[in-house]
Amino acid sequence: MNLLVIHGPNLNLLGTREPEIYGTTTLPELNQLIDEHAVSRQVSVECFQSNHEGEIIDRIQAANTSHDAIIINPGAYTHTSIAIYDALRAIETPAYEVHLSNIHARGDMRKKSVTAGACVGIISGFGVTSYLLAIDAAVATAAP
Amino acid sequence: MNLLVIHGPNLNLLGTREPEIYGTTTLPELNQLIDEHAVSRQVSVECFQSNHEGEIIDRIQAANTSHDAIIINPGAYTHTSIAIYDALRAIETPAYEVHLSNIHARGDMRKKSVTAGACVGIISGFGVTSYLLAIDAAVATAAP
Amino acid sequence: MNLLVIHGPNLNLLGTREPEIYGTTTLPELNQLIDEHAVSRQVSVECFQSNHEGEIIDRIQAANTSHDAIIINPGAYTHTSIAIYDALRAIETPAYEVHLSNIHARGDMRKKSVTAGACVGIISGFGVTSYLLAIDAAVATAAP
Amino acid sequence: MNLLVIHGPNLNLLGTREPEIYGTTTLPELNQLIDEHAVSRQVSVECFQSNHEGEIIDRIQAANTSHDAIIINPGAYTHTSIAIYDALRAIETPAYEVHLSNIHARGDMRKKSVTAGACVGIISGFGVTSYLLAIDAAVATAAP
Amino acid sequence: MNLLVIHGPNLNLLGTREPEIYGTTTLPELNQLIDEHAVSRQVSVECFQSNHEGEIIDRIQAANTSHDAIIINPGAYTHTSIAIYDALRAIETPAYEVHLSNIHARGDMRKKSVTAGACVGIISGFGVTSYLLAIDAAVATAAP
Amino acid sequence: MNLLVIHGPNLNLLGTREPEIYGTTTLPELNQLIDEHAVSRQVSVECFQSNHEGEIIDRIQAANTSHDAIIINPGAYTHTSIAIYDALRAIETPAYEVHLSNIHARGDMRKKSVTAGACVGIISGFGVTSYLLAIDAAVATAAP
Amino acid sequence: MNLLVIHGPNLNLLGTREPEIYGTTTLPELNQLIDEHAVSRQVSVECFQSNHEGEIIDRIQAANTSHDAIIINPGAYTHTSIAIYDALRAIETPAYEVHLSNIHARGDMRKKSVTAGACVGIISGFGVTSYLLAIDAAVATAAP
Amino acid sequence: MNLLVIHGPNLNLLGTREPEIYGTTTLPELNQLIDEHAVSRQVSVECFQSNHEGEIIDRIQAANTSHDAIIINPGAYTHTSIAIYDALRAIETPAYEVHLSNIHARGDMRKKSVTAGACVGIISGFGVTSYLLAIDAAVATAAP
Amino acid sequence: MNLLVIHGPNLNLLGTREPEIYGTTTLPELNQLIDEHAVSRQVSVECFQSNHEGEIIDRIQAANTSHDAIIINPGAYTHTSIAIYDALRAIETPAYEVHLSNIHARGDMRKKSVTAGACVGIISGFGVTSYLLAIDAAVATAAP
Amino acid sequence: MNLLVIHGPNLNLLGTREPEIYGTTTLPELNQLIDEHAVSRQVSVECFQSNHEGEIIDRIQAANTSHDAIIINPGAYTHTSIAIYDALRAIETPAYEVHLSNIHARGDMRKKSVTAGACVGIISGFGVTSYLLAIDAAVATAAP
Amino acid sequence: MNLLVIHGPNLNLLGTREPEIYGTTTLPELNQLIDEHAVSRQVSVECFQSNHEGEIIDRIQAANTSHDAIIINPGAYTHTSIAIYDALRAIETPAYEVHLSNIHARGDMRKKSVTAGACVGIISGFGVTSYLLAIDAAVATAAP
Amino acid sequence: MNLLVIHGPNLNLLGTREPEIYGTTTLPELNQLIDEHAVSRQVSVECFQSNHEGEIIDRIQAANTSHDAIIINPGAYTHTSIAIYDALRAIETPAYEVHLSNIHARGDMRKKSVTAGACVGIISGFGVTSYLLAIDAAVATAAP
Repeated sequence: MNLLVIHGPNLNLLGTREPEIYGTTTLPELNQLIDEHAVSRQVSVECFQSNHEGEIIDRIQAANTSHDAIIINPGAYTHTSIAIYDALRAIETPAYEVHLSNIHARGDMRKKSVTAGACVGIISGFGVTSYLLAIDAAVATAAP
Repeated sequence: MNLLVIHGPNLNLLGTREPEIYGTTTLPELNQLIDEHAVSRQVSVECFQSNHEGEIIDRIQAANTSHDAIIINPGAYTHTSIAIYDALRAIETPAYEVHLSNIHARGDMRKKSVTAGACVGIISGFGVTSYLLAIDAAVATAAP
Repeated sequence: MNLLVIHGPNLNLLGTREPEIYGTTTLPELNQLIDEHAVSRQVSVECFQSNHEGEIIDRIQAANTSHDAIIINPGAYTHTSIAIYDALRAIETPAYEVHLSNIHARGDMRKKSVTAGACVGIISGFGVTSYLLAIDAAVATAAP
Repeated sequence: MNLLVIHGPNLNLLGTREPEIYGTTTLPELNQLIDEHAVSRQVSVECFQSNHEGEIIDRIQAANTSHDAIIINPGAYTHTSIAIYDALRAIETPAYEVHLSNIHARGDMRKKSVTAGACVGIISGFGVTSYLLAIDAAVATAAP
Repeated sequence: MNLLVIHGPNLNLLGTREPEIYGTTTLPELNQLIDEHAVSRQVSVECFQSNHEGEIIDRIQAANTSHDAIIINPGAYTHTSIAIYDALRAIETPAYEVHLSNIHARGDMRKKSVTAGACVGIISGFGVTSYLLAIDAAVATAAP
Repeated sequence: MNLLVIHGPNLNLLGTREPEIYGTTTLPELNQLIDEHAVSRQVSVECFQSNHEGEIIDRIQAANTSHDAIIINPGAYTHTSIAIYDALRAIETPAYEVHLSNIHARGDMRKKSVTAGACVGIISGFGVTSYLLAIDAAVATAAP
Repeated sequence: MNLLVIHGPNLNLLGTREPEIYGTTTLPELNQLIDEHAVSRQVSVECFQSNHEGEIIDRIQAANTSHDAIIINPGAYTHTSIAIYDALRAIETPAYEVHLSNIHARGDMRKKSVTAGACVGIISGFGVTSYLLAIDAAVATAAP
Repeated sequence: MNLLVIHGPNLNLLGTREPEIYGTTTLPELNQLIDEHAVSRQVSVECFQSNHEGEIIDRIQAANTSHDAIIINPGAYTHTSIAIYDALRAIETPAYEVHLSNIHARGDMRKKSVTAGACVGIISGFGVTSYLLAIDAAVATAAP
Repeated sequence: MNLLVIHGPNLNLLGTREPEIYGTTTLPELNQLIDEHAVSRQVSVECFQSNHEGEIIDRIQAANTSHDAIIINPGAYTHTSIAIYDALRAIETPAYEVHLSNIHARGDMRKKSVTAGACVGIISGFGVTSYLLAIDAAVATAAP
Repeated sequence: MNLLVIHGPNLNLLGTREPEIYGTTTLPELNQLIDEHAVSRQVSVECFQSNHEGEIIDRIQAANTSHDAIIINPGAYTHTSIAIYDALRAIETPAYEVHLSNIHARGDMRKKSVTAGACVGIISGFGVTSYLLAIDAAVATAAP
Repeated sequence: MNLLVIHGPNLNLLGTREPEIYGTTTLPELNQLIDEHAVSRQVSVECFQSNHEGEIIDRIQAANTSHDAIIINPGAYTHTSIAIYDALRAIETPAYEVHLSNIHARGDMRKKSVTAGACVGIISGFGVTSYLLAIDAAVATAAP
Repeated sequence: MNLLVIHGPNLNLLGTREPEIYGTTTLPELNQLIDEHAVSRQVSVECFQSNHEGEIIDRIQAANTSHDAIIINPGAYTHTSIAIYDALRAIETPAYEVHLSNIHARGDMRKKSVTAGACVGIISGFGVTSYLLAIDAAVATAAP
């Protein structure tokens, strides 16, 4: 089973960006943790980060043939991007939305997820563990 | 580690209620799966179901001293109950909100979670797997 | 044919509560009228009242196997209870919503019915006659 | 007792128009059923259909002296016509609003009734039976 | 100077319709008062009433060549009819909106005037005097 | 009969302020026209202008014993001042709201009148003629 | 192939009504252009205009058997008429909505189309060309 | 004079629940203070706490004959329960709403009181003193 | 302990203004009652009334050094004045908001309090007793 | 005449993406049809697709000098992109908005077009024919 | 060049009022800084503060002839005063709105500026520097 | 001190794009003016323009180590981009938002700034001078 992890805008700053909300783990460290967890689950994983909505859409589209499941943290695009929602619906590869923080416990601007409606489900609020749980969710529910 | 699983209103009908949304697993079967998963994680778990908002609040309050973490699927009360939100905030035991279906992919009435803001996080959309992931989330993030 | 009549919160005060809106018939008198009308239609009827949302849900669920149709006046829960809505949708027994007063002729707070969407239909505004018409509606449209 | 039944816009297409919502009974057949039911209740009934808001208002006004009660299905004007609401309030003849479908179980556009506030009450969701129940409601509650 | 007075829906019931709001003067009596006032101002006046939105639009259009000013009480269409608004804007004859009651002192449904934006101005709340003032307004401000 | 005319904020700038909306007549000229019209109607009139909400309230209150009717153009306070609304309701002297421009034909911010609900009625859109018509309205409808 | 073109309220004033928005072509001239274009496409066309919502509904209903497609410019009824929406849905003849002006580039009141949801599609903003394109659209997509 | 004090959901946790908002006094201590204050005012008082909306309604109803006034802190039900509002309106015993914290100084979710409209008035923001003031208010304004 | 009582707009009309809402006690009588109550509590009190928002702000600011607590009934400014809210927040003297009527039981326009968020709390609905309770609240909770 | 056709996000997936909504024609096939139609109209056409909002803006800007008209299907950006709206307004080349599906017949999220206000008009709902009609619209209304 | 600086309500408390938001500079110190900066720019400046909306309007009106530009911090009136907006529009002297704090980074109540629409522009968030920049803006853009 | 100036979408068209709103200065000319002003303030400045939201985010992130302050005109992204807001919050370099036009004096779509909340402050409405003032603001308030 091949997983693609997509990190959205500003997640490359992880570890230094508002650590009281997002934690002190950096993106390379997070990717390392994701990788180790994937190995323990006997799945392969590829990580990708972009601040560009268009690049994220391109990558989602490409995953239709290259990967068995997408784990996506759309960052701020979660709340605004119908285009990413459309991309996720347009492909057959299932997607799993994750968030480091609990989007329901933050300001009104972040409570609504536009993109989650195109995903199998959402895991939000557990820090880096959100990603690891999403791998398990994908292993459990996505037909490889 | 002691976990309390709280199933909210109408979850006792699981398996027969709108199975295209909620699946065909019955509540006893779900509790059995939860129990087995807990055993595999070396934690103990107790399951409780009620259609009564007041009973759910009573049980949440009692968990302050009796359990190390709460996994709660507040069912329809998710979208309306400030009282459950208050109960979850009033105790020190951390809570993990779960949903069988993806609440972001359903009607407007179910998109907002009043209660999730008082939880560590939310796992929504993976069927019975949502509960199992919540056990793992609790094990990973709740200090026993 | 077995009917269950469910009276929601504060309907036990019927006859003394705001009689200019709800009339002077008491709940026992109303139940008597319901019973007589049911006899005249050759159906049996059981009446139940509760101020507790949870008890109403319990009773709706139980009616799945015990009754052929539910006539429900959810009282104030009409306007707020997604949990009762869910219970009514979760069973196969059809439900008929009734109101003594015309909810469209009252304040904004009472114009919306959350629960009616899970019922066959709604009869509102005819005083105690609303219940009697609902029995006839059930006889005419619910397959026993 | 003299009843006037007013069918609003597009009800002349009954039987062929979206039969999964409105049923397969045609308007002449419905009028026949209404007539038979009225006979059984020993009241006389006259049926009228128009797609014109103004004609409906004219007819409501005329019923002030010609009929003892109005049974009205305002069709799409239910949701928009303050003018029909005003006409119903301007006369002394009581009105009973009916709908074939359950307006609370349909799209947002159809959930609000502007006209029902000027009626004794509303019966919605029982197909052609809605009309027959309205005759009974009129017999029971309108002083001839 | 030729004036056209247009009375909208339900104004033919004046005198008997909710007299505590609309007064006890009947439409013929009102038209008589309008006529006498017009004579005193040395203008001619023609009165027209219809419950039909379409007929009101037809008459407004015809007034483009037949009259020097329109005094219009659009009744309930005040609050909903963009089509009457468009008709009033489409002609060169100026229009003066009148209301017997004070629309700002009534329910929310009647506070907004869709049509007034296409008129020179609005006179609302002075009973039959509203019409007489509108004649004076037309004499004072409409170039004959 | 004694009339008090109250001009609200910025009306002292009349004649130079946005003349395409408010005309070129200055406030002294307007007061002169009001005075002449009052003389012709055999009523006395006193004019008052203030930019201060509090002073307008003081003057309204004083008019309870000093004047038989108030003609008020509340200017921008029309749209925001519950305090002026309360003052107008608190006295027995009837009030007549006037506006130079047609408030229904301007931006959204000016479409709602908070104060008109406490007045007999409103005359809006006829330039200085609005005031003269209000004198006639007061003469016709206010018992001296 | 038989087409019915329906022009809604105030379109009979075309050419003189706000020509900076609606152009200087009159309705007879527009109908002439429509006719010539239809001839060039080898389809027959009949044109109809009414200011009456009810007449438009009547004509739509009749087109169910008399025509193969409807091209409709509902004018102001576009934004308010659920009854026309219902009529268009109630028949099998497909409808094509057209507007002379671009409704998305005008005031908020005109941005929403209630009726377009019952049409195959909408063509808006190209002046008289909107109608000609709609003929081509009908020829291309409506099965005769 | 007999007073009933009703404490709503989660007030049994007083003293430990968010003490920076609700203070450190426990419920037994608060009841003791209430009791002492009642004694000083020569009235008797009974205290009741429940997390169950239905039980609160039951108790309100019973107070119709058993007590002369109700002092109620509906907790989170303040903001959602039309059923408690109805119960308070349905009885003749006057009610006094109290809150420990100032509901107008907290989040939007807590600014609106659904229940206060059925009470004589509301006292909010003075900690345990709110209850003592309510006893004085009841003594001063409720006819025993 | 020195108290300042601030009465907002139109409270000088107390006793004659809508007595069914505000009671028949005049402002001098109310101030007398306040004074007597203060004496009984061994605090001194000064009363001030103004219809001017600016004067109320000036007085609030001055109270920062002159008084130990403010009891304020902002009248209609309750619902609109951010400036009074700011003044109350800008000083260290605590404020207690009072209302004669129950603002939660009146029209929508009066349900929201802008100013209460800057006060210790609010007492609303007990007529003149509201002020007396506020004195007790100040004595109990404001450190002199 | 030189036309630029811009396909927005996810249109590169045409043919496989939700074919029940968007049809089975692929993007190369669509471009082929566009090309053939352009040839038949004796205009040249260039097609461009991008998932990147920024690239679409770049291309729109470049078209100011390179093309005589733009035919644009902004895809999901239709509903959110003020930046594309600004780009279309900033150039002199006229734009024609097209949609394969009827945006008025879909979910609320897709009913509003932010971009159409900067275009000559909109053609929506005719599948690939929408594009061909837009070519004709451009030929008819854009001055080359 | 003559500048008038208008400080709105509560700005006289500067230095002691919520210094974490508004800073520790007092109003006399601020006026001193403004004066020195004006001298350095070779313009004269006059400072004025009032808590009274009416006085601010009076002063704005007077500035029409007395000053070349107005720098205004309307304080809380920024968010509510249409009357100040009108005064600023009514004069020819250009106005520059300033705020010490960044109104976009504060609560919802302060995000909207009613008055800024009548100014040349707005400078918000730079503490006392906001005023100094506004002097430079006036020098650069207001024709003396 | 090193400044980075970021120009958002469509600002490369400056000078030709709606010059009545944005002026006739081109972007190179604006950058020249910015450069000269920076030199006069003894700071260095680098200018960057992009139509791509992602590139703007990349550049903001990079400025965390490369520059001492950012001056940003986010163009249309001002009103929609939570991602740019997040980027600005994620870095320690302070940002200063500028706009050529006064966003409070334009359409509703442009009144809200999503991004300003992450900046020190905002300068809007002074044409190219907005940028020059921002340089001064940065010099005055950003610690180099």
